[in-house]
Amino acid sequence: MATAARLLLLITVVASVCFCSSRGEEVIVGLGDELATAPPGGGAPFCGSLRLAVEARNIVGWKTVPPQCAEYVADYVTGERYQRDSDVVINEAIAYAESLKLSGSGKEIWIFDVDETALSTLPYQANHGYGVQPFDNPSFQQYVAQGSAPALQPTLRLYRRLLQLGVKPVFLTDRTEDQRAVTTSNLLQQGYCNWEKLVLQPVGLQASTLAFKSGERRMLVDAGYVIVGNIGDQWNDIRGSPACGRTFKFPNPMYYVD
Amino acid sequence: MATAARLLLLITVVASVCFCSSRGEEVIVGLGDELATAPPGGGAPFCGSLRLAVEARNIVGWKTVPPQCAEYVADYVTGERYQRDSDVVINEAIAYAESLKLSGSGKEIWIFDVDETALSTLPYQANHGYGVQPFDNPSFQQYVAQGSAPALQPTLRLYRRLLQLGVKPVFLTDRTEDQRAVTTSNLLQQGYCNWEKLVLQPVGLQASTLAFKSGERRMLVDAGYVIVGNIGDQWNDIRGSPACGRTFKFPNPMYYVD
Repeated sequence: MATAARLLLLITVVASVCFCSSRGEEVIVGLGDELATAPPGGGAPFCGSLRLAVEARNIVGWKTVPPQCAEYVADYVTGERYQRDSDVVINEAIAYAESLKLSGSGKEIWIFDVDETALSTLPYQANHGYGVQPFDNPSFQQYVAQGSAPALQPTLRLYRRLLQLGVKPVFLTDRTEDQRAVTTSNLLQQGYCNWEKLVLQPVGLQASTLAFKSGERRMLVDAGYVIVGNIGDQWNDIRGSPACGRTFKFPNPMYYVD
Repeated sequence: MATAARLLLLITVVASVCFCSSRGEEVIVGLGDELATAPPGGGAPFCGSLRLAVEARNIVGWKTVPPQCAEYVADYVTGERYQRDSDVVINEAIAYAESLKLSGSGKEIWIFDVDETALSTLPYQANHGYGVQPFDNPSFQQYVAQGSAPALQPTLRLYRRLLQLGVKPVFLTDRTEDQRAVTTSNLLQQGYCNWEKLVLQPVGLQASTLAFKSGERRMLVDAGYVIVGNIGDQWNDIRGSPACGRTFKFPNPMYYVD
């Protein structure tokens, strides 16, 4: 660097450090857990920013939707936006799938999560505050046991397109082995068929979704499968190793799973 | 499984497969590249879904904002939503930083991207369609060379809080070594000071952002630093190995960097 330039930089640095220091006390302390600090009344703008932050994995580990955002989330998941946001994700997933050059080996698979991805638990959530109430496992399992969860139609559209293209669907879910029959029945009744595998958790397994699903993906790859895509409503469905060709985050503002 | 249950499952499966097959032709073909297929007139709802999909890394590799969303994106980045969305991300980052138990070694660092994270290029973008026009490198470099990019105030708030807490900021940017002086000057003038390192790309390096930044993070870790956080407006700023304690995606609907 030329001497003049060095001198100029030095002057700038010194001047700016002083300037910096003089403003050092203006720091505003962070607001803490956003999901507990929605403004009184919440308001669609603030709740919309929270939802965006959840979808972009900027907010993790949250337990419930803040009460101030109850109406916002209920409106969202029962209205056009959820449908439209889902359609955009699925359209992109289909465009990606159509761009793939398959090997012809029949080994390419696409992983689907079940709850809030392939099937919707909205009928259950409607009776439990759409995520405002703390998660209640017994009543949720009762709902699953009914086998009546409706398909999320955008996901079904992707599923059918993959079958046409020759990519084999694999379901990978936190549901447990004792729910295999009802899950199979529910999926079939809703139009999902001809899957390659339905992988459920062993009963009593004490693993996080991230650990369980990463481990199962590893076993699939070791068995010779090529995971070309992976879709789930939780970041812990789709992140971790082994990575897949492309991952897709299906919208879910109602709950977070570790 | 009891025989009766097996039989019931078999009947269900057979019935459902028939049901499935009868609906097999209803598949709707994907719309292809969303960013090229915005509806005529665009419309805030559709463009909002596109923006969400970009922030959640469901749409990648796009070149320009579709013309139909030009007005939407301009309104967004110059209005309250960008500010509010950014504040929510930064509040969460600060809450996370405040929760850290630091070792006392002074080795904990937080990585900041520069353009559209620490500094804003909005004055440039305003003259170039806010992402609607294809990226024009010469005019962008001229803007950088002016050293006049304003701070993104939410990021500056995080930066200052980290300094208070004892976490050292490191800038890691795609800007090149020949821009060190102007970048230093610009950052200081905007109130960023006392950083640990400013890491720029070697001139002429032909690496993706993901490859360059992953490599630099690896070298920082190998040098004994502990990366406790990483914030950038591009997914390729924050994904890849080595992973950091937490990553934060700062909003940017205007452009995508590989």
